[in-house]
Order: sequence, then C-alpha cells, then structure tokens
Amino acid sequence: MRTVYVNGSYVPENEAKVSVFDRGFLFGDGIYEVASVLGGKLIDFPAHIARLHRSAGELGMRIDVSDDELLAIHRELVARNNVEEGVVYLQMTRGAIDRDFLFDTDKLTPTLVLFTQSRPLIDTAVAKNGMKIVSIPDLRWGRCDIKTVQLLYPSLGKMEAKARGADDAWMVRDGVVTEGTSNNAFIVTKDGNIVTRPLSHSILPGITRAALMAYSEANGTRIEEREFTIEEARKAAEAFISSASVFVGPVISIDGVELSGGKPGPVTLGLRKTYIEESLKRAL
Amino acid sequence: MRTVYVNGSYVPENEAKVSVFDRGFLFGDGIYEVASVLGGKLIDFPAHIARLHRSAGELGMRIDVSDDELLAIHRELVARNNVEEGVVYLQMTRGAIDRDFLFDTDKLTPTLVLFTQSRPLIDTAVAKNGMKIVSIPDLRWGRCDIKTVQLLYPSLGKMEAKARGADDAWMVRDGVVTEGTSNNAFIVTKDGNIVTRPLSHSILPGITRAALMAYSEANGTRIEEREFTIEEARKAAEAFISSASVFVGPVISIDGVELSGGKPGPVTLGLRKTYIEESLKRAL
Repeated sequence: MRTVYVNGSYVPENEAKVSVFDRGFLFGDGIYEVASVLGGKLIDFPAHIARLHRSAGELGMRIDVSDDELLAIHRELVARNNVEEGVVYLQMTRGAIDRDFLFDTDKLTPTLVLFTQSRPLIDTAVAKNGMKIVSIPDLRWGRCDIKTVQLLYPSLGKMEAKARGADDAWMVRDGVVTEGTSNNAFIVTKDGNIVTRPLSHSILPGITRAALMAYSEANGTRIEEREFTIEEARKAAEAFISSASVFVGPVISIDGVELSGGKPGPVTLGLRKTYIEESLKRAL
Repeated sequence: MRTVYVNGSYVPENEAKVSVFDRGFLFGDGIYEVASVLGGKLIDFPAHIARLHRSAGELGMRIDVSDDELLAIHRELVARNNVEEGVVYLQMTRGAIDRDFLFDTDKLTPTLVLFTQSRPLIDTAVAKNGMKIVSIPDLRWGRCDIKTVQLLYPSLGKMEAKARGADDAWMVRDGVVTEGTSNNAFIVTKDGNIVTRPLSHSILPGITRAALMAYSEANGTRIEEREFTIEEARKAAEAFISSASVFVGPVISIDGVELSGGKPGPVTLGLRKTYIEESLKRAL
C-alpha cells in the first residue's frame, strides 16, 4: 500500500482523506503539479515549483511551505514508495472552511496532498507506437494557463477520444488548436519547421514544452511559436505532444488522417531522445 | 457541532472526510444541489432532485440512491441539526480511484455528501436593502447548464464584486448577460416587462427561475425569455436575481448605476412575496 502525504503526515493511502469542506472538493479551488521520476530522481523539479507559485499567485492562494520542504516531501515519498520510474502528484487547495463563495485566504490553512504513481515512462506503448488524436471543441474556461483541478472537461475529452478509438483529444478554439487534454500540441511542417502555439490564457505553460524549446534552441533548432489550425495539423509531416510524464509523445493520426506513415516520425523521436537525455542530466 | 452525511453515515462535521483520490477533489468531477429550508421544510425539493438526475445524465454519472432515500437523508439532517431556516447542500461525485483522466463509471462507487447551514433566508439584509452588482466577463466553461463543482471562477467573481464594493457580479459573454455568480439574472423594463435570458449551455437552469416563471404565468404575467445586454440592464426600471436560497434578490445598482431609486423595486418585491408564499404551500 502506498504512503500518501496529507497536511504534514505520511499515511497509508486508504487513510488519506480531506475534509468535505475543503474548497478543493466544494469549489475546484485547488492547483496541482505532476513531476516525473526517472531512476528515482525528479525531472524538471524547479520549474514545477516555479509554476506552482505562479498558479497560487494568480489565484491569491498562499503557499505556507518552503520550496526545500516541498523537495524533501517529494523525495521522502519517492523513497517510501520505492518509485524508480513514475510520477509525484502534488495538490494544494485554499483550505477547508464552511461553504461560502466568499473566502478570506488569511483565515484558511492551505491543504497539501502528495502521492506517487509508479509506472514506466520511457519504454511505453505510446513512445513505441505513437498515439491517435481526435479533435474536439475547447469548452474550458478562460484561464487554462492556471493549473487548477477543474479537469472535468479534459477528463471527458479523453473519454470521448477513447470512445472514438483514439488515445487523446486536441482541443480547438476560435479555429485554432489550443492543446491536448493534458499536454501541449506540436506539429512538424513538411519543410521541417517545428511549430507550437504561443502561450496565452488559453493553454497551460508546459514545463516540458519550455524545456524542449530550450534544448532545441541549444541544438540550433528554434521551435516556432504560432497558432495552427487542425486542418494544418492533419497535413503536417509529423505531430507530437509534450507533457511532464509522457515527455514527447508521437502522434500518428489526427481525426483518422494518418501522419508520418502511421508511425512515430524522426524529428519527434529525436526530440524525445534529447529531452530524456537532457532532463536526466538535471534530475534532482 | 453539525452532523454531516458522508456515504451512508451520519458523522460529526470534523470527522466528515473524503478520500484524496475522490474525483471531486482531483478533477472537479462532481455535481451538487442546494435546497432551502423554511419552517423546517424543504423548498422545491422534487425540482432539485430532477436537476441532479439531469446533471448526472449529462456527465454519465451513476446515482445509486433512490429519490426517496435522498429525501429521507435531507429530512434526517434537518432534524438532527434543528434547521428551521437555512439550506441543505448535497454533493455527489463519480467516486474515488487512483488518479487517471480515464475512468470506468461502472467500477466507481459515487461519493455522496450532505450538510446543512442554518441561516435566515426571509428576513435578510439583501431582501430589505437590495444588492449592488458589478459586471465581469464570463470566463466559465461551455457547459454551465450542468451544476458541477467547478466553481472557482464564480467564487473569484464574488470576491471581485466585494473588492469593488458590491454584493455580486453578473457575467457577460458575447455581449449579453449570462447570469450571476450563483443565481439567474432578471430585469424589469421601463414598460413593465420582466425579462430573463433563455436557457442554453451558458446558464444554469435555475429551480427558482422555473418556479418564478410558473407562478408568474399563473398570475397572468408572462416572464419574457430573451437575451439582454449589461447596458440595457443598467437602464432597466428594476433588476433582480433568483436563487434557491436568496429566492428573489432585489438589485439596486449595476456597475455603480442606481436602479429603482436605490431601493428594491415593487415588481421585484411582489415576485419575492409570491415565490415565498407559493413555495411554502408546496414545501416537503
């Protein structure tokens, strides 16, 4: 049985509970991060913590625990649960108090929950075979740049993708692709340009997205930031997604239209290799 | 200390907890209803339960408990907590399971939580003095007709209203008013027409809204369903909100523009009186 961290205590997972009055449960008033573990070490940890602070700042949510303490909790959970490869999930909410739309952040003690999931991240079916994507309208709220737990639509989107025989959905708003249900979206054009849409309130500022852009630029290949339509994506040479736990996931079809011969493309696989190598060098 | 209902048990409020793996906590994958209590009896109960079934249906969520059982739990909580006037809050989630965007509803046991809040609903400051409204952009997701717990934006909207010296916010999308942060929006035009926008995916199908329309029509006054702008609202003779716990709440200013002389208007107060009288006749 896993050990879970809840508000200062390490408890068995079946005892890991929060109040029904927690604003994360009643209002979706919570933020989260998911950091990957490779070889027992944390990938991109400082960037995840920086984004956690950004999310908290955007919502006026207090963080009562230091970055060093957060790192220590991550490492303790990785150790206690013997995670060699997998993820550490962190969720922070504004805290628990009798239900009211109005709140006084100063009078609330934030709730902090962390747990781990052990699973292969490098040798996966997605990495080997690629993933099929369907497109769906982006019906999410206007601040998708904040990593909140209001994930019902992305969850339903992934279910719809599955029902349509695919692995994930790309969301389309105002005629252009925003992002995947839990990842950023990229295409590789026929003349070899790697393209992803610019950051805005409509997409999550992906940690893996930012790292990929930095590693790519260091290698002399600049990733172009511009919007693209789902029609352009269907005609692309390659496509892929980036996320903290999939890293770089090859896309082999979009709405049933096959890309790169129905198997992971060479540019995509190169980026995946680079990302994993560079991340391991910096793992904590 | 209040007694709270959690998954079949009546427990003290400080012991009322749910798993950190509850999908209501991790994904906002939960729905809710708030029924008012007047004189120890439930207002509009059948309509709340009908809407709960609608919400569950839209999300493919299972309801394992019968309507009679739900009524019995409501009544038991009202009795145990001696609620004369107040509300019963009900939240149902898809259940608890290790975190995954994909889910199998059949393998999940829905979580059911109910608690009460005792407070005056009839003789309130809002009823006597009216409320001030500010307008904000409607940044919520595309399915506001489903009563989910993804309430972060409405909560932040009410906080913004408070910071701007007002009592609530009306949200504006595509140039027209959608609704208040936790209520439906109405205006009374200078020639005496009562207007509220038609139902769509953009607003909650309010129980009090529907009851008001029915009671009004029975009295020979049809409430007109059409969209209106915030500019039209600022120039209206009166404005008000409807909700299950405020009933009919007079609006006395919008974005600083005073309505009906800065006090609750006669049409609004008449509707409030009618709603309370008719609801009490049908209370369970």
